[in-house]
Amino acid sequence: MTTQSDRATVTAEQHAREEELVQRVLDSFAGTPDERLQQIMQSAVRHLHAFLRDVRLTEQEWKQGIDFLTAVGHITDDRRQEFILLSDTLGASMQTIAINNEACADATEATVFGPFFVEDAPRIDLGGDIAGGASGQPCWIEGSVRDTNGAPVPGARIEVWEADDDGFYDVQYADGRVACRAHLFSDAEGRYRFWAVTPTPYPIPYDGPVGAMLAATGRSPMRASHLHFMVTAPGLRTLVTHIFVRGDELLASDSVFGVKESLIKDFVEEPAGASPPDGRDLAGRSWSHARFDIVLAPADA
Amino acid sequence: MTTQSDRATVTAEQHAREEELVQRVLDSFAGTPDERLQQIMQSAVRHLHAFLRDVRLTEQEWKQGIDFLTAVGHITDDRRQEFILLSDTLGASMQTIAINNEACADATEATVFGPFFVEDAPRIDLGGDIAGGASGQPCWIEGSVRDTNGAPVPGARIEVWEADDDGFYDVQYADGRVACRAHLFSDAEGRYRFWAVTPTPYPIPYDGPVGAMLAATGRSPMRASHLHFMVTAPGLRTLVTHIFVRGDELLASDSVFGVKESLIKDFVEEPAGASPPDGRDLAGRSWSHARFDIVLAPADA
Ligand SMILES: [Fe+2]
Ligand SMILES: [Fe+2]
Repeated sequence: MTTQSDRATVTAEQHAREEELVQRVLDSFAGTPDERLQQIMQSAVRHLHAFLRDVRLTEQEWKQGIDFLTAVGHITDDRRQEFILLSDTLGASMQTIAINNEACADATEATVFGPFFVEDAPRIDLGGDIAGGASGQPCWIEGSVRDTNGAPVPGARIEVWEADDDGFYDVQYADGRVACRAHLFSDAEGRYRFWAVTPTPYPIPYDGPVGAMLAATGRSPMRASHLHFMVTAPGLRTLVTHIFVRGDELLASDSVFGVKESLIKDFVEEPAGASPPDGRDLAGRSWSHARFDIVLAPADA
Repeated sequence: MTTQSDRATVTAEQHAREEELVQRVLDSFAGTPDERLQQIMQSAVRHLHAFLRDVRLTEQEWKQGIDFLTAVGHITDDRRQEFILLSDTLGASMQTIAINNEACADATEATVFGPFFVEDAPRIDLGGDIAGGASGQPCWIEGSVRDTNGAPVPGARIEVWEADDDGFYDVQYADGRVACRAHLFSDAEGRYRFWAVTPTPYPIPYDGPVGAMLAATGRSPMRASHLHFMVTAPGLRTLVTHIFVRGDELLASDSVFGVKESLIKDFVEEPAGASPPDGRDLAGRSWSHARFDIVLAPADA
């Protein structure tokens, strides 16, 4: 699993010295009262030391690592979570999701939470508009919420959020606006519908240390176009996911590895003048529509 | 090297899903222009994902990890470096030192730098006092600086720093004091001597997230008594090390794994009234003395 090429140049005596240190650090956690915490800390120590030894990290590189993490810490505040961006861009967020959703094979697949969810987003009625004045092509989203037995889930709380078509979430503006986010509840038959804006690609924030890491490694900060969902209902497992736009050329290179085939949806384009399902007056604009049927796993899955 | 017990419960299909994600993340670094950076990032990704998969990290634990790193970032400032404390307490600092000092077997051993070094510490003459008014028993330190051929190194810059006998470094006080730190230069024969205070045990700062980690895992924040040295001379490898006090009961449980047998020195106690080597008037106080002969490796080692 790991590159042994560098380690191969290490003498047996040096190898033993390094092993001895690993063991000493592992032993220091021997008295951890919580067994799970002990397991996590000892595994973290094993893999951290294995990394340092595999790459034969230099002291200068160690210093660069400390400086990088310090910069990640300093740019992180109530509105920006650079550690989540780092986890996302290293695939750690998606791997955690993969590990925890193994048992929910019949349910809708999960993907990354991302750093832009906000508590207490406005409530809209069924058929309402989450845009809140944001620019973008109107997009009608509808679907259903069911459990893994096929039973409709009425009253499911559906949180939705997305970037505007300039590629920014409301919280990335300094003016305190609330836009492109809302919550609504499924109806008695588990159905839901709302207006949003057609998702467009956007870069994750790349003016910080994570952006510098992406630039230095020749990676793009762009995310495939998507609309975020978080769906909660009593007795059912909370689903955090997105839907993606079929045909988006960024689907194969999403910067946070969030794309799953089952989450790619047809966003059907309608010309200006075509009448939307709710008869809304779109003032001569074109619009789009997509369908997303959601299946929630049992809470104990 | 890693615990396989949990991973064994994973289905082949799930295993393949997780492997596929690791590969996708590794591939995203395929275009990294700098080969060394590519190696480091890909190894970091391999070990990070292996850790997540070995412990089957839950989403709640992932969130706790993000919160922990965020707290480490937020307490870090110009005077406090919690990421270095974290690296130190996980043994990562000592492992990096071990990896990089393999080639310097004849030279004095290195140990952790720690977070309390400050540039531009005051200069003292040979035989001067670094205490700067700090409390503590006077301690006479003397020794020599030589290269690995045994030749004296004149004019070596010797930085020394330590905690006062309340267990605090000057930078941990809010009053801007400069105490228990200085630099001096070896004489024409490579010899040096100075007054300090006898090292006493102290805890690493434990009022932050690293302290919380130590508490949760039943570990002590205490460091074995020590005095820091950084020695630089043209053409020779910079040495960052400490000397420890023989007999200190914390030698076996140093919180940053910094103790090496060769760095444990005899600190000889002298009663009040015993005359020190330089005839200084110690106003009736007891004092101690220790010898530390330093060997610097060639710069290209
Ligand atoms: Fe997003
Ligand atoms: Fe220290």
